[in-house]
Amino acid sequence: MCSDTTTAFSAGTRTETDSLGSIDIPADRYWGPQTERARRLFRIGIERFPPGMIRAVGLHKWACAEANQRLGELPAELAGAIRDAAEEIIEGRRDADFPLPIWQTGSGTQTNMNANEVISNRANEMLGQTLGTRKPVHPNDHVNRGQSSNDNFPTMMHIAAVEAVEGRLLPALGRLHAALWRRSEEWAEIIKLGRTHMMDAVPMTLGQETAAWARQVELGQERLRGVLPRLLSLPQGGTAVGTGLNRHRDFDAVFCTILTERTGLAFSPNPNKFEGMGAHDAFVELQGAMNTIAVSLNKVANDIRLLGSGPRSGLGELVVPADGLSSSIMPGKTNPTQSEALTMVCAQVMGNTTTVTVAGAQGHLELNVFKPVIIQAVLQSATLLADAAESFAEHMVLKLEPNRERIAENLARSLMLVTALNPRIGYDKAVAIGKKALAENLTLKEAAQRLGHVAPEDFDRWVRPEDMVTPGATLDGGG
Amino acid sequence: MCSDTTTAFSAGTRTETDSLGSIDIPADRYWGPQTERARRLFRIGIERFPPGMIRAVGLHKWACAEANQRLGELPAELAGAIRDAAEEIIEGRRDADFPLPIWQTGSGTQTNMNANEVISNRANEMLGQTLGTRKPVHPNDHVNRGQSSNDNFPTMMHIAAVEAVEGRLLPALGRLHAALWRRSEEWAEIIKLGRTHMMDAVPMTLGQETAAWARQVELGQERLRGVLPRLLSLPQGGTAVGTGLNRHRDFDAVFCTILTERTGLAFSPNPNKFEGMGAHDAFVELQGAMNTIAVSLNKVANDIRLLGSGPRSGLGELVVPADGLSSSIMPGKTNPTQSEALTMVCAQVMGNTTTVTVAGAQGHLELNVFKPVIIQAVLQSATLLADAAESFAEHMVLKLEPNRERIAENLARSLMLVTALNPRIGYDKAVAIGKKALAENLTLKEAAQRLGHVAPEDFDRWVRPEDMVTPGATLDGGG
Amino acid sequence: MCSDTTTAFSAGTRTETDSLGSIDIPADRYWGPQTERARRLFRIGIERFPPGMIRAVGLHKWACAEANQRLGELPAELAGAIRDAAEEIIEGRRDADFPLPIWQTGSGTQTNMNANEVISNRANEMLGQTLGTRKPVHPNDHVNRGQSSNDNFPTMMHIAAVEAVEGRLLPALGRLHAALWRRSEEWAEIIKLGRTHMMDAVPMTLGQETAAWARQVELGQERLRGVLPRLLSLPQGGTAVGTGLNRHRDFDAVFCTILTERTGLAFSPNPNKFEGMGAHDAFVELQGAMNTIAVSLNKVANDIRLLGSGPRSGLGELVVPADGLSSSIMPGKTNPTQSEALTMVCAQVMGNTTTVTVAGAQGHLELNVFKPVIIQAVLQSATLLADAAESFAEHMVLKLEPNRERIAENLARSLMLVTALNPRIGYDKAVAIGKKALAENLTLKEAAQRLGHVAPEDFDRWVRPEDMVTPGATLDGGG
Amino acid sequence: MCSDTTTAFSAGTRTETDSLGSIDIPADRYWGPQTERARRLFRIGIERFPPGMIRAVGLHKWACAEANQRLGELPAELAGAIRDAAEEIIEGRRDADFPLPIWQTGSGTQTNMNANEVISNRANEMLGQTLGTRKPVHPNDHVNRGQSSNDNFPTMMHIAAVEAVEGRLLPALGRLHAALWRRSEEWAEIIKLGRTHMMDAVPMTLGQETAAWARQVELGQERLRGVLPRLLSLPQGGTAVGTGLNRHRDFDAVFCTILTERTGLAFSPNPNKFEGMGAHDAFVELQGAMNTIAVSLNKVANDIRLLGSGPRSGLGELVVPADGLSSSIMPGKTNPTQSEALTMVCAQVMGNTTTVTVAGAQGHLELNVFKPVIIQAVLQSATLLADAAESFAEHMVLKLEPNRERIAENLARSLMLVTALNPRIGYDKAVAIGKKALAENLTLKEAAQRLGHVAPEDFDRWVRPEDMVTPGATLDGGG
Repeated sequence: MCSDTTTAFSAGTRTETDSLGSIDIPADRYWGPQTERARRLFRIGIERFPPGMIRAVGLHKWACAEANQRLGELPAELAGAIRDAAEEIIEGRRDADFPLPIWQTGSGTQTNMNANEVISNRANEMLGQTLGTRKPVHPNDHVNRGQSSNDNFPTMMHIAAVEAVEGRLLPALGRLHAALWRRSEEWAEIIKLGRTHMMDAVPMTLGQETAAWARQVELGQERLRGVLPRLLSLPQGGTAVGTGLNRHRDFDAVFCTILTERTGLAFSPNPNKFEGMGAHDAFVELQGAMNTIAVSLNKVANDIRLLGSGPRSGLGELVVPADGLSSSIMPGKTNPTQSEALTMVCAQVMGNTTTVTVAGAQGHLELNVFKPVIIQAVLQSATLLADAAESFAEHMVLKLEPNRERIAENLARSLMLVTALNPRIGYDKAVAIGKKALAENLTLKEAAQRLGHVAPEDFDRWVRPEDMVTPGATLDGGG
Repeated sequence: MCSDTTTAFSAGTRTETDSLGSIDIPADRYWGPQTERARRLFRIGIERFPPGMIRAVGLHKWACAEANQRLGELPAELAGAIRDAAEEIIEGRRDADFPLPIWQTGSGTQTNMNANEVISNRANEMLGQTLGTRKPVHPNDHVNRGQSSNDNFPTMMHIAAVEAVEGRLLPALGRLHAALWRRSEEWAEIIKLGRTHMMDAVPMTLGQETAAWARQVELGQERLRGVLPRLLSLPQGGTAVGTGLNRHRDFDAVFCTILTERTGLAFSPNPNKFEGMGAHDAFVELQGAMNTIAVSLNKVANDIRLLGSGPRSGLGELVVPADGLSSSIMPGKTNPTQSEALTMVCAQVMGNTTTVTVAGAQGHLELNVFKPVIIQAVLQSATLLADAAESFAEHMVLKLEPNRERIAENLARSLMLVTALNPRIGYDKAVAIGKKALAENLTLKEAAQRLGHVAPEDFDRWVRPEDMVTPGATLDGGG
Repeated sequence: MCSDTTTAFSAGTRTETDSLGSIDIPADRYWGPQTERARRLFRIGIERFPPGMIRAVGLHKWACAEANQRLGELPAELAGAIRDAAEEIIEGRRDADFPLPIWQTGSGTQTNMNANEVISNRANEMLGQTLGTRKPVHPNDHVNRGQSSNDNFPTMMHIAAVEAVEGRLLPALGRLHAALWRRSEEWAEIIKLGRTHMMDAVPMTLGQETAAWARQVELGQERLRGVLPRLLSLPQGGTAVGTGLNRHRDFDAVFCTILTERTGLAFSPNPNKFEGMGAHDAFVELQGAMNTIAVSLNKVANDIRLLGSGPRSGLGELVVPADGLSSSIMPGKTNPTQSEALTMVCAQVMGNTTTVTVAGAQGHLELNVFKPVIIQAVLQSATLLADAAESFAEHMVLKLEPNRERIAENLARSLMLVTALNPRIGYDKAVAIGKKALAENLTLKEAAQRLGHVAPEDFDRWVRPEDMVTPGATLDGGG
Repeated sequence: MCSDTTTAFSAGTRTETDSLGSIDIPADRYWGPQTERARRLFRIGIERFPPGMIRAVGLHKWACAEANQRLGELPAELAGAIRDAAEEIIEGRRDADFPLPIWQTGSGTQTNMNANEVISNRANEMLGQTLGTRKPVHPNDHVNRGQSSNDNFPTMMHIAAVEAVEGRLLPALGRLHAALWRRSEEWAEIIKLGRTHMMDAVPMTLGQETAAWARQVELGQERLRGVLPRLLSLPQGGTAVGTGLNRHRDFDAVFCTILTERTGLAFSPNPNKFEGMGAHDAFVELQGAMNTIAVSLNKVANDIRLLGSGPRSGLGELVVPADGLSSSIMPGKTNPTQSEALTMVCAQVMGNTTTVTVAGAQGHLELNVFKPVIIQAVLQSATLLADAAESFAEHMVLKLEPNRERIAENLARSLMLVTALNPRIGYDKAVAIGKKALAENLTLKEAAQRLGHVAPEDFDRWVRPEDMVTPGATLDGGG
């Protein structure tokens, strides 16, 4: 049960009245009657919108006031007061005035009204009024001018998501990519055993293995960038159902211009506002991209855990960093804790994909009413992937060390080096050599010689791990 | 980024040392070096274990100390001090001493060590020592005696989950069921149009429609109860890998007895500890039951939204309660806000099912290391379903009103009443009547008469909505 | 594109007429106009109902005819002809007469009408009529008497699901459980290294490891049995919307009695028909149980793949059976092919869980119209789990061999045996021993001696793997 | 249980021998020992690779032979015979020679070997040999030359997926888009009630509503095109682990050139072969795009179902086409059957997304071994979406008709027209008017007049639905 709803507010209450009635409100909070009613009606869970969303609410209201002023829809004095109040929200100073859970009306109307009420109260206060007067700045007529929750809230969602992707996730993936890439260069010369089906296969370099992980991360960034155009396309201006009722003809374009000026992000009006309000396919798409990134990172974390298994009785090719944490019973045990945190994050993101899919699929006619849960899942996914990618880069990737001795040992005893003989003696004879070596516990060279398929000197020329890590070398003359 | 990790602690720091080194810790906190290291290593997300989990941690440690004392493994003085410190955790007074995110080691080891450190520090303090002395109560040797994170943490998960199901979810579903059942009795006589494929179908009562929703909720309770036996089965006693290394032979049984005495819940030792540590199928199963409940509630909320659509230009058969919330642009608009909050919760629970499935499927050998994300998703699901079910019962179900006029109107004009004629004149002639009525905009009676298939007086005897809401009546003599 | 819809039928066509018009039908097929129209309207995909579902259709219609006869609703001659025709469907002899894809009306109406048409045509043929006459047996008035697709089709779903669970999945899991249990007994004495976090941990037996897998499978059977009561509860008798319009008062009870007589399965009438038609929570629940089983089997298959990794440069503790399959390039390579088939099946079942959840959540009012996709996913899940479990038991579990040499080697070098010293010297000193051994590449015994924490003779008494695989032994006197 | 495996082959058997042993094979089939062994080992399910995948297998082997010839790795005669045999596979004439289920080795090795064996047998037959001679064309040394299943099979997956997207899904979405767009233009002038939260809102046009659906489909096409670059990037040339062992240095580039010549699709070599073999993120990404399309289509189908509800006692604004199908009990009932088929397809695609996510996340080191289940889910998704989109366009969208009378009636009685007064009299007074009208069952005009807020003549100028469907008009002079 939401704790905020039962908080005792020591400062007493004031009574506010709007067109739907009167209600007591904690005296030291800026919210108004709509917010207070919602606070009592939705005592569900502990989840609140994250700071990135509240910041987007502030940016949005700031830009709306500016746009209305430019278009002559609001006098400068009112617009200025609204902007000043919105600025406080942007700066995170009004977070305590947004008490509502995400489990509210599916349009986010209560959070939009929460913003309208906080801003009008704070703006009026700045203009010398007491809280609750609703003038000169009216929450609906001025703060919400030319707007509806139905276009405001999804626009705030787009703003928050773009900032999360551009400001957090892409840079964090960049750091992880850089860390992996650096290790792949450092380890370019270490020849090791490759594994397929988790079984011993043929040689490769540790640098190649690491570069593949880096490539997955790089493609993840590419995927995110591919999604951005549809996220930058804002439904602002649709107002109630998408038609733009009651807003200035140029409001959508001017709003985007202002927002771009302020944020440096290339927002533009969605040419079909109905699409951006009745559906949230852009978020389903973004979540799909993040789901793909989770799939990538899950593999990277798993591979490192697998190569680092041991330290003595596993694959043991990588040394997991000792991070000062240990088992509560097994003394001095070192575990791949960062792989575990990261794969747990990946599981969460995969689940969030189902959430966003289910929520995105159930829009009806002119409004999808699963907006809060969608943006919650999207922002959580972006934040967790960003935080965990950075943590993994810093505490795992950059601190891993190869165990060269074990790597060499594992490589030397693999029977799959026999593959290099295929082009020389054909697949069937190569099979015979491999089977004999396994059955009689021989080296491949011994088996090849005993079967008379390859002379020892040829074996040494033909079966060289260093020739097996690039295309073509095993087809060449062989010395 | 986790805010706790960057909190400035005004009270200064103390230095604590354990077997893995020394580290500075905020002076006024009870946690120790393992916790502090983890706090710095896992700066991921804002998610923390909910109060129900921290309470389970306290209950667990309390029962372990008691069990060790009874079995002669701990002296009474140390055991008593541990229990006293654990009691503070149970009561929620040590919540601020559990700063770690859920995104940590997948075994929950850091949270188990957090508990060991907080309890040993607090117990030692009670025994007159300063923080950080690690004696007379040692975090591993005494607080963790006969235990490992690997059996402790999953046991805590089971305790928290059982309490959430028994203490919150089942009662909340009970309240929703009671509300629906009450309405179904109140509305037992209201005959209305049934709908299949969302199209007009044949008559039923509003009571029947509501009773079906109640039945779904009741079966949800039955499903939860069916899962409980496997949740009550605790892996405690497995210690490091499931074998029970280093614990007293009777520790598992005595622990369960004590826990049952304390909580009134029928816990028992899992006969195969390995199963309860390496896998968490019991949580996947529980999540599956909650997923089914989410599916049920999604339908109930959707049906009410659909029947309440309008108020003038929708189905309009139910009147959605005016809750004092409204659109920011459309004056006085009333929306089914509780249906929206509830269906958003359902979407979250469905996504959590994917999370728990993915996490549950990836256990390796003796340990599943997705424990924190699993219990987080499970407890969130239980809490949200409980809160939302109660909110929906109180603010929606008990405040709904039927629009009898609209119900009668919708029923009267449906063409599907013709179905009652099947047993009299056969399906093919009934089709002809229905088609003629639709095409020529006639009543069924008129069409039946014009086609010569049914005399008016027979029509009146045979096609009576009140005979169509129970089996058999349309097959009887008809007057 | 559905191939059946474009099949050229060489035998020419006949023209059939029903109340909605006339249409040409392949002359040698028993279906009628409703089926033929649907065949042309739904050219989607290649998926058809599996044999188990068609058999359930036959059983259902057979029992309906029998019930109607017993209740005096159908004359013996017609009922007998209907039963004879239905028997052919039960026996699988009419499969080619069910051409419709599962992607049809969401109520399964077309498949119910397909059955009505095939049976009426075949029954009439047996009674000396030509196809298409619709008498003496009429598809709606007689074959469908007292029924609606809306209660028929979900009843068929229940029948097919119960048969799949009872007849295929439970026995198959039984065989897998028996295989695992047998191996756990054979391997009871093999002491090996346990692993947590995929890292070296403390000793256990291979029998214990295998018994944990067996236990997971056994609990899976328990979960399935827990779901059965709600699957055995049939909505038959609800007819169009759940009220039972146009059916005999006792039809539902008599139908279940007859079906139970015929199948030996304890079917009973759902006391709330609306619940069984408007919602399919019982299938969501069943799918949840199968999802849990998939999670269990995924772990078993993964663990065996991990322990079998190598053969020389992996964990190598189990020898994966050489099954005569190999790599197309790496000669003689043996892979854990059965683990791969099984884990792919698990991925499918997990996806099916999302499908069934999404489909189950979207029922509207008196009818859920996602019936075909739900039963398709459920039956596919049951069949795949059953087939794959049997295949895994036969070709993997019963053919695995332990590599005792490698097991002993892996055990001997683990540093975590130091855990046995905790009760003797305390956790902190044990850490020191472990760290020294790792850093200086010593045995634990050497490190313990050099640190002066444990005398060699004590070490030998206290650190004995055979004492570490059961509770209590390390706490005892130690010889 | 897979039926093929128990098929009685009437033509008797021949015995074939490879390096792993001898086995009897149906005499009239072209497959060889590896295929036959796999057929017996994997008796799981009924799922087989769809025709599009078998065609891709043929295209792949054709291009490999051509590339090897151009690079001097295969003599012209052998390469020519291989191409001729592969051509038969491309043409669909060898489908019966691919008997294996998708539930096999996770690398698809058995299907690659199946192709190698069928082609070598058929090629040798063309060259005058009997089946099973393995010369002059050897399945591994020639058909599989310079290749491994590990790069072949994922390359086949990419080919099949690109063809499915380019050849089926994009054109099908194009047809659906065209149909929706056409209707939106035809219906551009029909003013109707918009709905948010499923409740009466403000006016819009039916053309706008339809154009939003069209826009969703158009963006779906854009999403697919955004994914194509990574699908066109082929891992061919990685051979066993990604290094390119045993293949000609230029094989990857020449292969892509040839494939592009043949198909017209812009394939290119993946610069990091390891990424394309160890991970299948490109398919997770593609599935994410198709998941987004499923979400879009689900909304379109639902909206049409909702607007078409009735015909008399629902919203009734659209007339669902009478398609000649009906209820088995309710005579003449018309249902939105195409919406139901489409939304079931969407549920399947959403589930497939979970399947592909789970399967994609579990690659290990150099190989993801969930390849068959991934491509199965991806191709099924593409095919179902394509088929269902076309079916929906043809049988639903193009046959829908607006019910103009009902549309006008629904619009006229909505209270939300009051929104147009906001800019004139302020939100609070507008609320008062709306509340009064609802409470006293008045028209808005009457309520406005009685409250003295708006004069009748102003009301008529200010509240005009035709001014409410575009931005700005309600802000203008109003007359």
